[in-house]
Amino acid sequence: MTGAHDHASLIVQGRDRPGIVAAVTAVLAGFGANIVSLDQYSDDPQGGAFFQRSVFRLDHLAAVLPEVEKELGRVLADGFELDFRLRDLSVPQRVAIFASKADHCLMDLLWRHRRGEMPISVAMVISNHSDTAAEVRSFGVPFFHVPSSGPDKSAAEAEHLRLLQGNVDFIVLARYMQILSGDFITRAAVPIINIHHSFLPSFIGAGPYTKAKERGVKLIGATAHYVTENLDEGPIIEQDVVRATHADTVADLQRRGADVERTVLARAVRWHSEDRVLRHGNHTIVFA
Amino acid sequence: MTGAHDHASLIVQGRDRPGIVAAVTAVLAGFGANIVSLDQYSDDPQGGAFFQRSVFRLDHLAAVLPEVEKELGRVLADGFELDFRLRDLSVPQRVAIFASKADHCLMDLLWRHRRGEMPISVAMVISNHSDTAAEVRSFGVPFFHVPSSGPDKSAAEAEHLRLLQGNVDFIVLARYMQILSGDFITRAAVPIINIHHSFLPSFIGAGPYTKAKERGVKLIGATAHYVTENLDEGPIIEQDVVRATHADTVADLQRRGADVERTVLARAVRWHSEDRVLRHGNHTIVFA
Amino acid sequence: MTGAHDHASLIVQGRDRPGIVAAVTAVLAGFGANIVSLDQYSDDPQGGAFFQRSVFRLDHLAAVLPEVEKELGRVLADGFELDFRLRDLSVPQRVAIFASKADHCLMDLLWRHRRGEMPISVAMVISNHSDTAAEVRSFGVPFFHVPSSGPDKSAAEAEHLRLLQGNVDFIVLARYMQILSGDFITRAAVPIINIHHSFLPSFIGAGPYTKAKERGVKLIGATAHYVTENLDEGPIIEQDVVRATHADTVADLQRRGADVERTVLARAVRWHSEDRVLRHGNHTIVFA
Amino acid sequence: MTGAHDHASLIVQGRDRPGIVAAVTAVLAGFGANIVSLDQYSDDPQGGAFFQRSVFRLDHLAAVLPEVEKELGRVLADGFELDFRLRDLSVPQRVAIFASKADHCLMDLLWRHRRGEMPISVAMVISNHSDTAAEVRSFGVPFFHVPSSGPDKSAAEAEHLRLLQGNVDFIVLARYMQILSGDFITRAAVPIINIHHSFLPSFIGAGPYTKAKERGVKLIGATAHYVTENLDEGPIIEQDVVRATHADTVADLQRRGADVERTVLARAVRWHSEDRVLRHGNHTIVFA
Repeated sequence: MTGAHDHASLIVQGRDRPGIVAAVTAVLAGFGANIVSLDQYSDDPQGGAFFQRSVFRLDHLAAVLPEVEKELGRVLADGFELDFRLRDLSVPQRVAIFASKADHCLMDLLWRHRRGEMPISVAMVISNHSDTAAEVRSFGVPFFHVPSSGPDKSAAEAEHLRLLQGNVDFIVLARYMQILSGDFITRAAVPIINIHHSFLPSFIGAGPYTKAKERGVKLIGATAHYVTENLDEGPIIEQDVVRATHADTVADLQRRGADVERTVLARAVRWHSEDRVLRHGNHTIVFA
Repeated sequence: MTGAHDHASLIVQGRDRPGIVAAVTAVLAGFGANIVSLDQYSDDPQGGAFFQRSVFRLDHLAAVLPEVEKELGRVLADGFELDFRLRDLSVPQRVAIFASKADHCLMDLLWRHRRGEMPISVAMVISNHSDTAAEVRSFGVPFFHVPSSGPDKSAAEAEHLRLLQGNVDFIVLARYMQILSGDFITRAAVPIINIHHSFLPSFIGAGPYTKAKERGVKLIGATAHYVTENLDEGPIIEQDVVRATHADTVADLQRRGADVERTVLARAVRWHSEDRVLRHGNHTIVFA
Repeated sequence: MTGAHDHASLIVQGRDRPGIVAAVTAVLAGFGANIVSLDQYSDDPQGGAFFQRSVFRLDHLAAVLPEVEKELGRVLADGFELDFRLRDLSVPQRVAIFASKADHCLMDLLWRHRRGEMPISVAMVISNHSDTAAEVRSFGVPFFHVPSSGPDKSAAEAEHLRLLQGNVDFIVLARYMQILSGDFITRAAVPIINIHHSFLPSFIGAGPYTKAKERGVKLIGATAHYVTENLDEGPIIEQDVVRATHADTVADLQRRGADVERTVLARAVRWHSEDRVLRHGNHTIVFA
Repeated sequence: MTGAHDHASLIVQGRDRPGIVAAVTAVLAGFGANIVSLDQYSDDPQGGAFFQRSVFRLDHLAAVLPEVEKELGRVLADGFELDFRLRDLSVPQRVAIFASKADHCLMDLLWRHRRGEMPISVAMVISNHSDTAAEVRSFGVPFFHVPSSGPDKSAAEAEHLRLLQGNVDFIVLARYMQILSGDFITRAAVPIINIHHSFLPSFIGAGPYTKAKERGVKLIGATAHYVTENLDEGPIIEQDVVRATHADTVADLQRRGADVERTVLARAVRWHSEDRVLRHGNHTIVFA
């Protein structure tokens, strides 16, 4: 029921201790809210971490939400070590999609958005190639071409930050083939979701599909994760695989890889935009 | 954490209205219980059905549980139309497994149980064939041979009821190839889980694998469900499929079917035994 | 290697008997052809049906193919009860896509085609709705709007046949929500591929997703098949499923269904266009 | 049809060139053999490697096979750079299963074998633990306990070789937790199949499940491969995955891993025993 009128999501996360759920739900009940769904997870009953996602319905939500927030702040400040985030689900999260030449993930997101599958607002597409400009704009989405060749990305990243500033809630790297600097990640200050191919075993370095072909892998996978300074080592949001055979050429493997990449990325973006993904250490709790 | 010492599960189910979660969790908090996990689902925010499963930890659980139950009864009786079930998770549910000649599902359950994967106590195996007696008993499980030929099942079912009476919490039909009467289902008075093959499309009547071969199906499936008087039409607990090709003979299809049957049945039994499956109308809510 | 220059496919199908493979490959060897891949299947060694697909490479293929065909005809006429089809793989098969309002399967095929994933030539899109006209034409593909309301489809089908006549090698029904008459199927005289949702169990009649929701299915599937006069009962080409849960609304189930439909249809179209699907009785042999 | 009376498999492998299939099938046709199935694959039409598996039926096979072999040798020696293997499929391949404490893969193989799913003869089980002795022997299979502690494996391996000598056609490491020396691999001189867990990304070193938990992987996989001196880097035969969530404990991940390991190993053993797996460089061609 996310995206619906008068619905809000509430994420509570922190140190586990008895009574959190009771305290939080008492606040919501006090406002007459009806909890539509609630998922809670604790990674250790003897004092580990606590994670909760609830979606509730409340008449005149927009008007009352500041009061709910104040009251939750008051209650949760009192003795609990917890953070919480409250969000009106009728307001879609704003996203910037970064892409390069390969358009399969970019187009899949734009399509799904147009079909109403994604509770997001696509604020802009930024690409270091201009090839997809016309197609992106045909979806009514602004397209910005920001070239980014050479090792020094600072000019390009400065331009990125100017475009993003105040306009987006998260960033999706839809096969954006440029490395982001730690400085950019810090200053963008919004979650960044990336998609990359995954194999068992993993193949390091250039030409992974060629290596996968030589080793005769039987599965081609994709991993969507949050970007950290450690490149492809950030918290995993979602993964999936498709089967491959000896008869698949390197091009076939790439095509299968593209299929699974777009599927996995779409799931990750959807879950993120519905506040279903909670980060903790280097992993995620996904209330999907 | 199911199966652990001092842990209990609480299922609450009924008509949805604001404040249920707050009321329930306040009771648990009052006893100093720590909620380890909580899943809640409402099928309609405007007044539909409410489903909640929580697992909580409470010191000296066995001693305190009756008081918790009394208090929950008091609170939930007051204005809510709700049922609840409270269970000490350190006490495994007792199960009777019914089997016939095919032993793949039966043996898989006994194995998984011995490996500690199943929080159940296998009270007995009942079969209309004696073939598996020695093997079942080698697992330390009582085996009862109850022949059941001919259309009149009343003598066999009377014997079944004598064996089951007071001894089991649920029944698993592990490819038991006999039809149970509505009278038996009523008098057994415990949940009954069945497994059967599933195809797309479905093939009615005898020889389903032969028909599936003729139609060239590309998937072989299995469905685990609760038994109702409508045979294979009860609430679905779990389903899965495996791929098949034109080169599979009818025997190959049966072998693949057996594999997916035992996997699906094991998941269904495990989830049921952990109180993860809630029935509602003709479907289930599975907090897996 | 399909689609490559100087490559041809050869399908041989008929009554099995010793020596067929030897006879066929001797002909190819006589022309200096190199067999790139060969799949053979016999459904009964004691005199059942024989199926073979080979792809071979031959210099100056286009010039020599008529002679190869004549020689194969001579050899296979001599004592074997076999049909064969020989095709230059550098010539893509021409397809007409029929669609209605739902565009997920249509757009997926056009996209994959543009990305070079499909060895087909999209001759035209025919729809009983005009909604997708501009988008289809943006792919450089002719779009024809042929309204088809009311029970009498004869005028629409006459128009369809006029458009198709001589222009297409097969037809894809990409969620075309109109029933084709047996007369149309006969007169179109080309293979017709359809995609439809599949559940375990199957739900007959209107509102299948609503019924699937009520029954709580855990899998949503799709089946691609050849169209025969028996509606959705023709030979199955490909099937797949995705998981669903109790939390999926009817709209969620439809979205998941759309995803698996487009994936399954794309596989079926690709395999058909590479001559990988052989029909026999009411099933298929798929050399994928 | 493998395992059937009067059926043989023929593997041909080597440098590709025009005419191989014609030459091989002409020999079989000359003996009146009926080819039941034939799979052929060439990794490069312009002169790469050639792979063929055929299964044929021939009356009085056992008596005629030496002549077929001689004739194939004569024809294939003549100008082709090819190896071939011919095998009477009514004679099951003899296997030794190596195991340690974990019995899930071992028991799964023994069960499947007893149910007639595996065209193998289990010659012996060798374990460095004695725990499973009684259970293995209850299947009528010889069990040998060969302790293997400490870094020096030479005594244990000498004992292994004494037991294996002349008795087995291949070895399966069913979660055998000891490293085999290169010397043992050479002297055993039969194919060795291993199974190990696989993750995306892979986790090197001890405690992979703990690392996988920390990283929050969403898939748990298993890889069956041939053993080479490079440990887990040999040619992959089969891979598969199952889903995992944040709620899975390390024990849950291990349980899921055990499930997928036994499934993948069973497929690999079955395919190997039916001569469906051809090795080439560091990968396999699997005609499954």
